[in-house]
Amino acid sequence: MKIELLNTGSELLLGTTMNTHAAWIGGRLLQIGLRVSRQTTVPDGEPIREALAEAIARADVVIVTGGLGPTSDDLTREAAAGLLGIELITDEAALRSLEAFFAHRGRPMADANLKQALVPVGADVLPNPHGTAPGIYIPPRMTAGHGCAVFLLPGPPRELQPMFHEEVMPRLRALAGGTKPPEMKVLRFTGIGESDFHQGVDATLAAIPGLEVGYCARIAELDLRLIGPPQAVLAGTEAVLGAFRARCFSEEGRDLEETMVRMLAERKFTLATAESCTGGMIAHRITNVPGASAVFAHGFVTYSNEAKTALLGVPQDTLASHGAVSAEVVRAMAAGALRNAGADIAVAVSGIAGPTGGSPDKPVGTAWIGLATRDGHHHETKVFQPRGRRDFKLAVSQAALDEIRKTLSP
Amino acid sequence: MKIELLNTGSELLLGTTMNTHAAWIGGRLLQIGLRVSRQTTVPDGEPIREALAEAIARADVVIVTGGLGPTSDDLTREAAAGLLGIELITDEAALRSLEAFFAHRGRPMADANLKQALVPVGADVLPNPHGTAPGIYIPPRMTAGHGCAVFLLPGPPRELQPMFHEEVMPRLRALAGGTKPPEMKVLRFTGIGESDFHQGVDATLAAIPGLEVGYCARIAELDLRLIGPPQAVLAGTEAVLGAFRARCFSEEGRDLEETMVRMLAERKFTLATAESCTGGMIAHRITNVPGASAVFAHGFVTYSNEAKTALLGVPQDTLASHGAVSAEVVRAMAAGALRNAGADIAVAVSGIAGPTGGSPDKPVGTAWIGLATRDGHHHETKVFQPRGRRDFKLAVSQAALDEIRKTLSP
Repeated sequence: MKIELLNTGSELLLGTTMNTHAAWIGGRLLQIGLRVSRQTTVPDGEPIREALAEAIARADVVIVTGGLGPTSDDLTREAAAGLLGIELITDEAALRSLEAFFAHRGRPMADANLKQALVPVGADVLPNPHGTAPGIYIPPRMTAGHGCAVFLLPGPPRELQPMFHEEVMPRLRALAGGTKPPEMKVLRFTGIGESDFHQGVDATLAAIPGLEVGYCARIAELDLRLIGPPQAVLAGTEAVLGAFRARCFSEEGRDLEETMVRMLAERKFTLATAESCTGGMIAHRITNVPGASAVFAHGFVTYSNEAKTALLGVPQDTLASHGAVSAEVVRAMAAGALRNAGADIAVAVSGIAGPTGGSPDKPVGTAWIGLATRDGHHHETKVFQPRGRRDFKLAVSQAALDEIRKTLSP
Repeated sequence: MKIELLNTGSELLLGTTMNTHAAWIGGRLLQIGLRVSRQTTVPDGEPIREALAEAIARADVVIVTGGLGPTSDDLTREAAAGLLGIELITDEAALRSLEAFFAHRGRPMADANLKQALVPVGADVLPNPHGTAPGIYIPPRMTAGHGCAVFLLPGPPRELQPMFHEEVMPRLRALAGGTKPPEMKVLRFTGIGESDFHQGVDATLAAIPGLEVGYCARIAELDLRLIGPPQAVLAGTEAVLGAFRARCFSEEGRDLEETMVRMLAERKFTLATAESCTGGMIAHRITNVPGASAVFAHGFVTYSNEAKTALLGVPQDTLASHGAVSAEVVRAMAAGALRNAGADIAVAVSGIAGPTGGSPDKPVGTAWIGLATRDGHHHETKVFQPRGRRDFKLAVSQAALDEIRKTLSP
């Protein structure tokens, strides 16, 4: 089944808004064994007509996002109806729901909004509880000569995503009939690069019949995607883990912070953080995980030497003789955080994010990570991440979370 | 000048990788007065041929990303040469640079990489200091009958972006000739929604000749984009600020955290943070700004009641009688952070991110923000952001940063 995605919206082409629909919808489709064969973005207004005609001529299913708003530039429903020769009429239920939307907010409905209740005769109206424009489904029997199913969906993700789950997925499943989703497994790694995989397992993976292998490299993180028949995915997983098990932090597609919070929770350990160069990012990532409060209560952001001394008890001597970016200072930071928080494990980081502050000895990108546990163990690691400020913070926070993971690993 | 963008890469359609090229390239083009008229994504392999042929037939400039790698699925250069009837030959300089790339990394070059030095006869080779595949520029005179300029660029952003600046922008400027970039202004707001603008200034803006108005709503943030002749943009800016100046945190497209760090630095003030529900995100956002260390040194993440008492001196009585999410507690948190950090201003937040922890009295989404200054002023605000955990943190951190901005505003 050939599926095309057509995104309308000038903002997607002007550099102000990222098109998140393509990846989001692609991910949902893959779950039911379907793929997008082509994705197109056009600006608001007339260009939708040509692009939609081409997509309907090529595909079995066309999913359009955007262009259902009240302004004169919102032409999606008019273009679809015009192309397929179907009349637009006001759908009474859609009109009532529009009126209710405005009444609920105590605002008058503008005349312009009336056109949002227009629907091609015979099409399904897809309710939109989160916005004004309902979605529209035109089944294949209505696209005479093309046999193409057409979905018209609102542009805002908070409106589109629930509608996609409720209304689009069931219809796609029905259209796909017995298409069986392939097995997909995403293994996530840190501290290792794509070239390591190429050298280590590419040949082995290539020899597994039916296995499709994909890599996705992010900052300090690499996803390996295996798609294919269950046996091929199993064989691929074993080959990859055989070579790189210690670097794999999730076999279920989880984030490193989630993996780490689960490991702490299983052992009923509490964690404290002491951050200099990451400036709160480690704490922020940990508290993104639901349930983090069971394992994390105390975080210190000590950006200056004075703060390291005042909040963590790092001796001024240590700072003066070794510098803030040193094994000795992260060791003292971790010990201070452990003590002041009464935690089981503490992690501390200090580094040079740049753009200034580097030296020949300790260039921008240098960071030390310290780990301390209640039973007196400590461990310091030096990392070097010569990236821009934000990516540096992300890479160092990743290395710090991974140090905790390794400490907790059996 | 009609410009099309063609992105190749299966990962862009599988839900694992966001297509960041479209927005990034769109933004660069707008700076020189150019726009993308259509963007297309196709999977790796054969589909590039059809999509590229269509784009070349429609456009004056086609920019292709991806498909220049060493594998059999990387077909971009073969497809372009085939379509345009140009022979591919090995470019000696490109080959030497490939060999140097691998030699520098101490790795043998695979035979598969040899094809990355293939270039259509007569095309420009665009050096790639950050990867193996050079870019290729095929000028309009070589696309006989089409008069279309074709750029073939590598897929990874860290390779594409420098090449775009160095090699593509100058050629596009030359192709565009005297195209004058329109004036563009981005005003950024928080604490206000798109509908407020529609009601407040839409009619005024619509009456300004030549003015193009765009909105981009993010979590707790709204960008208003004005494009057009300088006078129109000026008139539009005045109209918008006349109605909503107090809600505008930047007229230069800056982030709220950057605006705030600059305001603190101008006054030589230092800030301390005390975070419960935002869990370090406020500190993280502040330390994303280069130069943050001049104004920010002390951050406390106090996720439990015990931590609020131990690190910030919040009285247990206050926690017991008012609950952790209360005006009284954020007042005590802010006072404690101010004192312990010796700062000029302190901000404190406490709220219920969910999914659990809500009550009829204080539902999930409730947060209190407290502000304290060295001269004894304090101020508490309640906000309600019923969103998912991550968006809640973002929205509350935004409200907290905005409280600081408002306090510092003249």
